[in-house]
Amino acid sequence: MKYEFSARAHTLHSSPLLSIRTETRRGTLISLAEELPAEELFPLSLLAETASTVISADAGALQYGDPEGYGPLREWLTGDWLKAKGVAVAAGGVLLTTGSQQAIDLLSRVYIDPGDRVLVENPTSPGILQALRMQGAVIIPVRGDQDGLLPEHLRTQIRLHRPKMLFATPSFTNPSGILWSLARRKEVLELCTTHNLLIVEDDSYGDLHFQRYTEHPSVKYPSLYALENVSEGGHVLYIGSFSKTVAPALRTGWAAGSRELIGMMAAAKQMADWQSSSLNQRLLHHLLDVTAFDLREHIALLNREYNTRLKLMAELLKRPAWKSSSYCLPAGGMFLWVTLPEGLDAMALLKASLTKGVAFLPGPLCSVSGGSGRIRLNFSHPGRDELLLGMNLMSEAVTEFTARS
Amino acid sequence: MKYEFSARAHTLHSSPLLSIRTETRRGTLISLAEELPAEELFPLSLLAETASTVISADAGALQYGDPEGYGPLREWLTGDWLKAKGVAVAAGGVLLTTGSQQAIDLLSRVYIDPGDRVLVENPTSPGILQALRMQGAVIIPVRGDQDGLLPEHLRTQIRLHRPKMLFATPSFTNPSGILWSLARRKEVLELCTTHNLLIVEDDSYGDLHFQRYTEHPSVKYPSLYALENVSEGGHVLYIGSFSKTVAPALRTGWAAGSRELIGMMAAAKQMADWQSSSLNQRLLHHLLDVTAFDLREHIALLNREYNTRLKLMAELLKRPAWKSSSYCLPAGGMFLWVTLPEGLDAMALLKASLTKGVAFLPGPLCSVSGGSGRIRLNFSHPGRDELLLGMNLMSEAVTEFTARS
Repeated sequence: MKYEFSARAHTLHSSPLLSIRTETRRGTLISLAEELPAEELFPLSLLAETASTVISADAGALQYGDPEGYGPLREWLTGDWLKAKGVAVAAGGVLLTTGSQQAIDLLSRVYIDPGDRVLVENPTSPGILQALRMQGAVIIPVRGDQDGLLPEHLRTQIRLHRPKMLFATPSFTNPSGILWSLARRKEVLELCTTHNLLIVEDDSYGDLHFQRYTEHPSVKYPSLYALENVSEGGHVLYIGSFSKTVAPALRTGWAAGSRELIGMMAAAKQMADWQSSSLNQRLLHHLLDVTAFDLREHIALLNREYNTRLKLMAELLKRPAWKSSSYCLPAGGMFLWVTLPEGLDAMALLKASLTKGVAFLPGPLCSVSGGSGRIRLNFSHPGRDELLLGMNLMSEAVTEFTARS
Repeated sequence: MKYEFSARAHTLHSSPLLSIRTETRRGTLISLAEELPAEELFPLSLLAETASTVISADAGALQYGDPEGYGPLREWLTGDWLKAKGVAVAAGGVLLTTGSQQAIDLLSRVYIDPGDRVLVENPTSPGILQALRMQGAVIIPVRGDQDGLLPEHLRTQIRLHRPKMLFATPSFTNPSGILWSLARRKEVLELCTTHNLLIVEDDSYGDLHFQRYTEHPSVKYPSLYALENVSEGGHVLYIGSFSKTVAPALRTGWAAGSRELIGMMAAAKQMADWQSSSLNQRLLHHLLDVTAFDLREHIALLNREYNTRLKLMAELLKRPAWKSSSYCLPAGGMFLWVTLPEGLDAMALLKASLTKGVAFLPGPLCSVSGGSGRIRLNFSHPGRDELLLGMNLMSEAVTEFTARS
C-alpha cells in the first residue's frame, strides 16, 4: 500500500548515522563515529551477580513498575549522587527515562509546538537536533567559544527570535567537548532567567572530567541547575544518564526539575511506553547501594583510560596528513572535534574513509546548518590498537584528498 | 517560572489512572483497575540463572545495541513464534519496542498529523486513546457486537470521515474481551484494504485464549496480518508483546509490518530513545532459545490459572448486588467488561469504591465518549483471596448506591 506518513516523519530519514551504525555492528568498520563507552571496563561480574540476586529475591522485580521509575533508585540518585553535585531535587522532581535521549524527547513533546523557536548551542548533538526537528521547532543556533556560549550572541538571539527555551551542555558539549567557565554559566543562567526561558541542561558527560584540579569540580563547574537560586527555581531541567558511567544497555537516564515539569513529563512517559524497565533500575540500585561497586572510583578508572586514549588520538593527529587541521584538546567527554584543512568536505571525506573501513561523524550532523568543515572523532570506545589502525586509515583518506588539491 | 506547555500536553492530565496506580502500589488498595499479569507465575529462577549467564558471557550484553532490537530475538520471533501463527515477516520487517504501548506511540508519531481522522474500535484501551489524543488525531469510534466490529458501521464511518487508519484488537479487545469471528476479520480487512486504510492490529492478548477448541487457534482466529494477501500486503501493522506472556519488566514488545513502515518507525525509535534495553532482549532470547523454558507450555499454565480466576469473578458477580448488571463472559484476555445497573455512574462508583479500598477502571477511560455505565475489572493479577475481598468491597459499594435509588 502507499503510505501517507505524517508531515515531519521525513525529517527522521536525513541521517546517515543509521547506516554507519549498521555497518559498524557488522564488524566491517572501525567506528570513531559513535558515542559508545569502553565495554572492557563494564562491571561485568558484579552485575551478573546482582542480576541473579535481584531476580531471585522478589517477583516484583519482573512486574510493571511506576511510570516515574523505581523509587529506591530515584532516592539514591537525589539523596546521594546529585546532592554531592549541589543538585537539590524536591520530592516528585525526578523521572527515570530510557537514557538521556528519551528525557530530551519527552520534554520536547510536552513543551514545543510546531513553529516554536528553540535555541541550541551550536554545534550540538545529533539526538537533540532530531528530537527538535521531529517536534517542528524552529531551531536557532547560538555561537560559543572555548569558555562556553557567548552571552552577547545569546542576548541578540533572544531579542531577535523571542525563543521559548535553550538546549545546552555546559560540561563537555557533544561534539565540541567544551567545558563552560563558571562566569559563563552564571551569565547564561542570568540571561535565561530574566527572559523566562526554560533551559534544558544535558549533563550526560559531566562526570567524564579527566583533569585534576585543586577545587572540587562541582564548585568550579556547578551545573546551571545547581546555580539557580531556589526561590526563583524551575528554569532548568537537568538531564543525566548512567549510560556513560555504568552501562548503556541498562538504558537508564533521568530528568530532574520542578515538580510541575517532571509531572508533565511523567504523564507523557506513561503515554509513550508506560515506563522504562524497572528490572534494569533495580539492578542499578542494587549495584550502587548494596554491592562493593563504588561509582566514584569506577568513574576515576574510566577517566584515566579515556584520557590515555585521548592523548593517543592527539599524538596521531600530529602526523603530516593532519598538519592543516586543528582542534582544542578537551578536558573530558568522549569526543575530539576537528576542523579539517580548508576545502576538505566532511561528507566527501566520510565517503572515502568508509571505503577504507573507518567511520567518523561528519560535522553537518551536529550542526543547525553548515558544519561541513568539521568532524567528530570518538576516543572512548576504540581500544588502543583499534585507535591506531582507525587513525591510520583516516590519515590515508585525508592525504589522498589534500594531495589531490 | 511559569511554564508554557505545548498545546496538546494538557490531554495527558485527563486520566485518573495515574493516581489509582500510585495508591495501588502503596498497598492501600486492592486493584482490579490495572492490567498486570500474575507475578507468582513468573519464571523467576530460570530468569535469574539466565541473567547471570548472559551478563557473564559477553560484555556486549551491556553495550548499546541496534535501534531495531537484538537480532537473534527478532529472528526467534519471526522464524519460530510468529510463523506458527501464520504471520510471515520479511527481513527488516520487525522492530522491538518498549512494550506494545511504544509501538502504538511510534506508529502514531510517524503516521498521524493533527486533524487526521483515525478510526478506533470502541471501547478501546486507554493507552491507544492517550497516544492518539497527544498526536492530535480526530478519533472516530466504530461500534461492534460479540463477533467484532460491525462492517456496516465501519463502512459508514469510512465514507463519512475518510479516515487514514483503524486501530483494532481482534483477539480479546481491551476492555471488552471480544474475540472477533473469522468472517468479521475477513470483512474488516477487505473493507480497509479497499479504502487504503492502514490497520494497527494489537495482538498483545491473543495468546491468552482460555478455551479448548478442536481447530488450531491460528486457523480459527488468524490475525488480520496473517489473513492479508501477500501481494496486496502492507495494510496491517501487527503489534505484540512479551509483557503478558513472560514478564512486563523486560519491557519488550514488537511491531511487524512492511519494511517501509518498520523502517520509518525504527528511525522514530532512534530519535525517541535510541533503543530499548538490549540486555533485556538478550535475556528473553536466552530464556526462549537456550533454557528449558517452553513459552507454549507457560502460556497454557497462565491460561488455566486466569480462567479459574475469571470463573471465580463471574461467580462473585452472581451476588444480589450485581443482579441488574450484565456482561459477556470472555474466552480469554485479562478483563471483564461489566454494564452497571441503570443509573449507576462509573466515576461515582469508583469514588465510593476507593474509600472502601478497591479500584477498577471506569468505562469513560476506555471510550471515545460516554462509557459512564460500564466498568473494566481485571482478573489476572489479584490472587483468589484478593479477588474475593476486592469483589466483596465492590459489592458493598454497588449495594449502597442501588439501595439509595
